Amino acid sequence: MTRSAHYVGDRKMTVQDTDPVPPGPGEVRIDVAYTGICGTDLHVLHGAMDHRVRVPAVIGHEMSGRIAELGDGVEGHRVGDPVTVMPLDWCGECPACRAGHTHICHRLTFIGIDSTGSMQSSWTVPARVLVPLPEELPLDHAALIEPTAVAVHDVRRSRLTAGEHAVVIGAGPVGLLIGKVAQATGATVTVLELDPHRRAVAADLGLSVVDPTAVDVARQVLESTGGAGADVVFEVSGSAAGVRIATDLLAVRGRLVVVAIHPTPREVDLHRIFWRELEVLGVRVYQREDYAEAVWLVRSGRVPTSRLISRIVPIEDVGRAFAALEAGGDVKVLIDCGGVG
Amino acid sequence: MTRSAHYVGDRKMTVQDTDPVPPGPGEVRIDVAYTGICGTDLHVLHGAMDHRVRVPAVIGHEMSGRIAELGDGVEGHRVGDPVTVMPLDWCGECPACRAGHTHICHRLTFIGIDSTGSMQSSWTVPARVLVPLPEELPLDHAALIEPTAVAVHDVRRSRLTAGEHAVVIGAGPVGLLIGKVAQATGATVTVLELDPHRRAVAADLGLSVVDPTAVDVARQVLESTGGAGADVVFEVSGSAAGVRIATDLLAVRGRLVVVAIHPTPREVDLHRIFWRELEVLGVRVYQREDYAEAVWLVRSGRVPTSRLISRIVPIEDVGRAFAALEAGGDVKVLIDCGGVG
Repeated sequence: MTRSAHYVGDRKMTVQDTDPVPPGPGEVRIDVAYTGICGTDLHVLHGAMDHRVRVPAVIGHEMSGRIAELGDGVEGHRVGDPVTVMPLDWCGECPACRAGHTHICHRLTFIGIDSTGSMQSSWTVPARVLVPLPEELPLDHAALIEPTAVAVHDVRRSRLTAGEHAVVIGAGPVGLLIGKVAQATGATVTVLELDPHRRAVAADLGLSVVDPTAVDVARQVLESTGGAGADVVFEVSGSAAGVRIATDLLAVRGRLVVVAIHPTPREVDLHRIFWRELEVLGVRVYQREDYAEAVWLVRSGRVPTSRLISRIVPIEDVGRAFAALEAGGDVKVLIDCGGVG
Repeated sequence: MTRSAHYVGDRKMTVQDTDPVPPGPGEVRIDVAYTGICGTDLHVLHGAMDHRVRVPAVIGHEMSGRIAELGDGVEGHRVGDPVTVMPLDWCGECPACRAGHTHICHRLTFIGIDSTGSMQSSWTVPARVLVPLPEELPLDHAALIEPTAVAVHDVRRSRLTAGEHAVVIGAGPVGLLIGKVAQATGATVTVLELDPHRRAVAADLGLSVVDPTAVDVARQVLESTGGAGADVVFEVSGSAAGVRIATDLLAVRGRLVVVAIHPTPREVDLHRIFWRELEVLGVRVYQREDYAEAVWLVRSGRVPTSRLISRIVPIEDVGRAFAALEAGGDVKVLIDCGGVG
């Protein structure tokens, strides 16, 4: 039996039991241990992704589990292996794919939004999306490999190096992960966050965090960089104010990484971009090498994923899990999908 | 005697005769052949730069001439040598200078705006700003080395390569130069321009030019790039519409180069920047290597500077020269400064 959580529209999730989907050629069936709830999953619940999601829909893509069954022709994997997935499926034929940017495929399928996700005890996927995990990595920590790969991708695109100064605007889960990944590169990191609870979480993770309404951030960054300004700013707040302060904080040739999704156009200080020869970089999901780095960072403890998990809820209580996240106060909520002992 | 054109405020230029300034140690005196009128000079005349310009001011920085006199300690130059200048003076001590970005020095002096310029028959400058010219390069053509260096810098920052597709928004002098420099790299270039006269000039220079109000540019660019979009867009119009179309035209990982000065913040489609992993690049003035490339491009005829010169006016008629530029219809207007025979 497969127990699965379904988004059925109208802000509702239901839990159902069905037969497991046997893996076809080139596919594997995974016993799912945990699935984290992403901000995007919350958007799905709120109906904001109804143009992409076909109800009833099993969503979820931040997962960990063990291989339960191999379809024909699958090589290099064994039943019982711990795995996560890189939930992207691309066409291989569009101009983006042909240019090597398969993660920005013009017809990209994001598994767990555009197709069936991992919020179920048993999940069948193409073997090509598997990411093997080290046996000693606890599976609850491993459910955060996917968002860590997001952070790794963002930091890699920023070209941040040891000794540089990075500012992260917004201390939600992705902002916190970017802060820790940036620290792991040897950079000095300052996090800006309005919410006191999120500031406390950031501080607890060893990040230097300030309230931008209480501190003259521009002055503080100038002072701590010998008058230069920040080398990199990650905009993870999605706010107009975040965009505004970002360009103000950057040093000559500094890089602004647009991580958050800004649904409407934002006013950007193009004069400052010209005057300081700034760079603005869009970043989207991840590539294979980001997963490799993310596994290493989580396994080594440099990214303390366990301390970001604020709640683990059994799949039967999926509604409660989403409600907790909506209420605020949580960082990362995992669904125990029940597929692994 | 030095004959010089002075901006005296109130939209007025006057012509005066004074004694030449003898070169101090490390300086040279140049007999100025030609000085081009830049868009910035027009801004000066309109009072928009009054916060930087001390009246009465000799402005001008797009110049050519011959060395007339060497100050003490100047080596590597001879009287009679043809030269232009890179009109930048930096502090060498600020964070930008220390990071190697001297052209974006926090205390940059732009010679000809922040200090005395070349709209005079005899001009004394530090020898370190000199750029030697080949003897066979006509001095009127050479007056366009400086704006060509701007275009070279912008194209270099864009990382445009042969076979890529570039779009230039705006066909003023800088847009035209960017179009020709981009062509010289082996890229395919499309220029967008609203004004029919400017379109005719662009076409005459061998550039493919379209009226963006008459043609579905996005569709045309998609068709000519196999559905990919443009690799690089140069925004040289300074308009909100230019910024808007720029992000629409770009391929996955495309680069938007912000060349024009946008005095107020502009709405930018940050969602598109995220979705396609676009890059926005600020560009400002030039560096030494851009001058070297500009001299080569002009000398080889790849950038046909002579065909951009629409009018040469003697310094006595400087007011008429500015008036002609304001009236429209001209591309590049040179002042014959009278310093070279």
